[in-house]
Amino acid sequence: MSYYQKLVDHNLKISRFNHLAAICGWDQAAMMPAGGNQARSEAMAELSVHIHALSTEPQLTDWFEAASQETLSDIEQASLREMKREWQSANILPKDLVEAKALAGSKCEHAWRSQRGENDWVGFEKNWREVVELSREEAQIRADALNLTPYDAMLNLYEPGTNTEFLEGLFGDVKTWLPTLIDQVIEKQSKESLIVPSGTFPTSAQRELGLDVMKLLQFDFNHGRLDVSVHPFCGGVSSDVRLTTRYCEDDFIQSLMGTVHETGHARYEQGLPKALAGLPVGEGRSMGVHESQSLFFEMQLGRCDPFIKILAEKAARHFGRQDDKAFSPENFHKLYTKVDKGFIRVDADELTYPAHVILRYEIERDLINGKIAHTDVPELWAAKMKDYLGLDTVGNYQNGCMQDIHWTDGAFGYFPSYTLGAMYAAQQMNALKQQLNTDEVIQSGDLTPIFAWLQSNIWEKASTLSTNDLITQATGEVLNPTYFKQHLENRYLK
Amino acid sequence: MSYYQKLVDHNLKISRFNHLAAICGWDQAAMMPAGGNQARSEAMAELSVHIHALSTEPQLTDWFEAASQETLSDIEQASLREMKREWQSANILPKDLVEAKALAGSKCEHAWRSQRGENDWVGFEKNWREVVELSREEAQIRADALNLTPYDAMLNLYEPGTNTEFLEGLFGDVKTWLPTLIDQVIEKQSKESLIVPSGTFPTSAQRELGLDVMKLLQFDFNHGRLDVSVHPFCGGVSSDVRLTTRYCEDDFIQSLMGTVHETGHARYEQGLPKALAGLPVGEGRSMGVHESQSLFFEMQLGRCDPFIKILAEKAARHFGRQDDKAFSPENFHKLYTKVDKGFIRVDADELTYPAHVILRYEIERDLINGKIAHTDVPELWAAKMKDYLGLDTVGNYQNGCMQDIHWTDGAFGYFPSYTLGAMYAAQQMNALKQQLNTDEVIQSGDLTPIFAWLQSNIWEKASTLSTNDLITQATGEVLNPTYFKQHLENRYLK
Repeated sequence: MSYYQKLVDHNLKISRFNHLAAICGWDQAAMMPAGGNQARSEAMAELSVHIHALSTEPQLTDWFEAASQETLSDIEQASLREMKREWQSANILPKDLVEAKALAGSKCEHAWRSQRGENDWVGFEKNWREVVELSREEAQIRADALNLTPYDAMLNLYEPGTNTEFLEGLFGDVKTWLPTLIDQVIEKQSKESLIVPSGTFPTSAQRELGLDVMKLLQFDFNHGRLDVSVHPFCGGVSSDVRLTTRYCEDDFIQSLMGTVHETGHARYEQGLPKALAGLPVGEGRSMGVHESQSLFFEMQLGRCDPFIKILAEKAARHFGRQDDKAFSPENFHKLYTKVDKGFIRVDADELTYPAHVILRYEIERDLINGKIAHTDVPELWAAKMKDYLGLDTVGNYQNGCMQDIHWTDGAFGYFPSYTLGAMYAAQQMNALKQQLNTDEVIQSGDLTPIFAWLQSNIWEKASTLSTNDLITQATGEVLNPTYFKQHLENRYLK
Repeated sequence: MSYYQKLVDHNLKISRFNHLAAICGWDQAAMMPAGGNQARSEAMAELSVHIHALSTEPQLTDWFEAASQETLSDIEQASLREMKREWQSANILPKDLVEAKALAGSKCEHAWRSQRGENDWVGFEKNWREVVELSREEAQIRADALNLTPYDAMLNLYEPGTNTEFLEGLFGDVKTWLPTLIDQVIEKQSKESLIVPSGTFPTSAQRELGLDVMKLLQFDFNHGRLDVSVHPFCGGVSSDVRLTTRYCEDDFIQSLMGTVHETGHARYEQGLPKALAGLPVGEGRSMGVHESQSLFFEMQLGRCDPFIKILAEKAARHFGRQDDKAFSPENFHKLYTKVDKGFIRVDADELTYPAHVILRYEIERDLINGKIAHTDVPELWAAKMKDYLGLDTVGNYQNGCMQDIHWTDGAFGYFPSYTLGAMYAAQQMNALKQQLNTDEVIQSGDLTPIFAWLQSNIWEKASTLSTNDLITQATGEVLNPTYFKQHLENRYLK
């Protein structure tokens, strides 16, 4: 057996334990009663230890060395590259640091759950200090190994191949036009009227509506399910994707589009090539590319006029509101494109969202590179929030720098993926429109040609290409933020 | 650290992987879409291999030897005994035999799923031959190690401490009175009229009724759930018990009492001592004792007059049938005590059930001890079915010896547990009635005193005692089948 094949078999074994972790993790969020948590957490921790042990078995060093001397096809070379990337990432950190960071993150997050409600920055800061210190230590170790700056090394975990220099150009450009555009759109929308659907929307009808829309989006129910969890997510494994949503009986608008968003993640997973299942090269390319699929579904597809029309009709039918003006396509369009300056990223609309991301990017970049102290964050946050969105968050920690779980847990470098995803999605839709009248396709009710394009250009490529090559092969050029800007202007100013 | 403690830690580790297997196994039966099966089966198989590797680590031999020299408390001695029993059971068989038997069982079961419907004994026999041969090989190896007969060695897997000599006396006695009793009861019931509830009983109402009854039975929903699967079972882990049922919209009777039965298993699991969780000594005592709890709930509690009255009232309310005579307590009593001679064990009533078990026990005993050939089974089945229930099954393999999954899979020695459980349950109820007017307690609607007795006499004892000691401490004597006979005569003849 070749060393390459030994590595493949070993990675398949690891993926089987990851499968168990994914299903039990989904169960913990969507099914498990509260009393089951302690034993479950212990079982999941034991599994993590086992997966880490498999990922760091000493013979792997020799196997990678030997495999690099073997004659491999292009796809095998890509597979070897991705196996090695995951192996290096798992092996680079001392075990003590991994454990210390997990512990500090868990402690900080646990306290944060009540501290946030109490706006308790002083209490939070005490725990967070250690999370930041250990994250800097991690970043430095990764930076030394990859010959990158500390923050770039963290970026690389979520979006391999990107770096601060590139993001500076990208986000620097956005900052020149976004604040003005936001003001223009808010001014424009202030003259329009909008009807918020009122009344009760039973959970059972919301669920049926969601399933109906998932069918339109060709979610494969033979390889996945829809359930409920407090924080919606797309989990499970590619052969059995576990989607979740949450229902609020006096507002279905957010949950419905949330389901469209998660279905985008799910179809990417379901569309990954079966032949590469269980191998790193068979996984989604990156956080940014994954987000590009959920945002393609939510923003490019889900908010375009013909889709909104179908959505409004389906919603009216499921809730028996065919005569309710709030359910007209025109009103649905307004509901789903309303722009507001708000404190909270997860509640932000498509237009203000990048401002939230750029603010976080700039702060975490300097924090991880050691240019600012963690105690500087609230002040910087307030200044940037004033600059980008004109909002005052001085002293309002709970709706400021304490609002997200990412920093609490030490996941620095993740935030840029959201806006990279939005930009990739706009560029993908632009490329697709060169080949297809997407509006006509959507009006027909059979979206197959759109999904066929995503399948062959994004999904079935998995991680065989770098993000740059993936985007270039799919759209004819590297990431070009012009398409995102054009998309926003078209949707919100015209 | 003592060797005893090393063994404890090692067993806790194994139990965490067993936890993952239990949850993913439940998911596979209750949640997983069909398309997820291949990857799931591979992940579960990988987990089995890992658990077997942990259970057979070479240093355990020395650890058990060293621990046996240490000074241990009574409970620690019991714990060591149970750890050793599980270790021996896992280590006694050569790996090749374990794999060959699993493969043969899986092949036989897979083909059986269609062969049974086609009444294809000839096809079944070809696969089953190997299952029987490998089961005999397993039994012989276990027999040599334990100095028992082959069948007794298999019995010991499910009901440690019991043996053929004991069962001969027990079942020999039952055979002297059961066929006559069945005929008497059928004759008596033939003069009574019974109304089968008709109409549609929506799944949602059946589910609410089931949950309502589970609350009455004090199932702890903070440590468990109720879901649906094709074959109802009680799975999960003791801190998170996963119960399943199935619904048929034109018949709620079977599903409702099935839920009562599974709740009995579940409360045993939920009542196991927290301090011993994750250790073999903290598990349910045996298959027979586990079945005694489900049958205590289903037969002793669930079919007694005051409970039937509550059940009828709840059912009438949930289905809106307060004026339907089929929902009177008297009619419910008749529905739930109807005796019929039938071919199928899983559909059998309380009274004919032991006949099905004794028939299987006598055949599998001789089959595993090598006294008969597997090709003799259909003829023996037909003869015994004629003797015990007066039914003709000649040539009717699908409703004869091909009806159960146990033999198909090679689980010989399991069947006696069902009737042992029924007998333990009758004896437990008899003992409880010496201390408590159970009818009055049930009428009050608060069943706490009954569960308190089970908790302190059965559940919290877990596997700290042998079955004999457990039953003796709880009821004042070893298993005495008189109570089972009295119970049947009281219920069915009076």
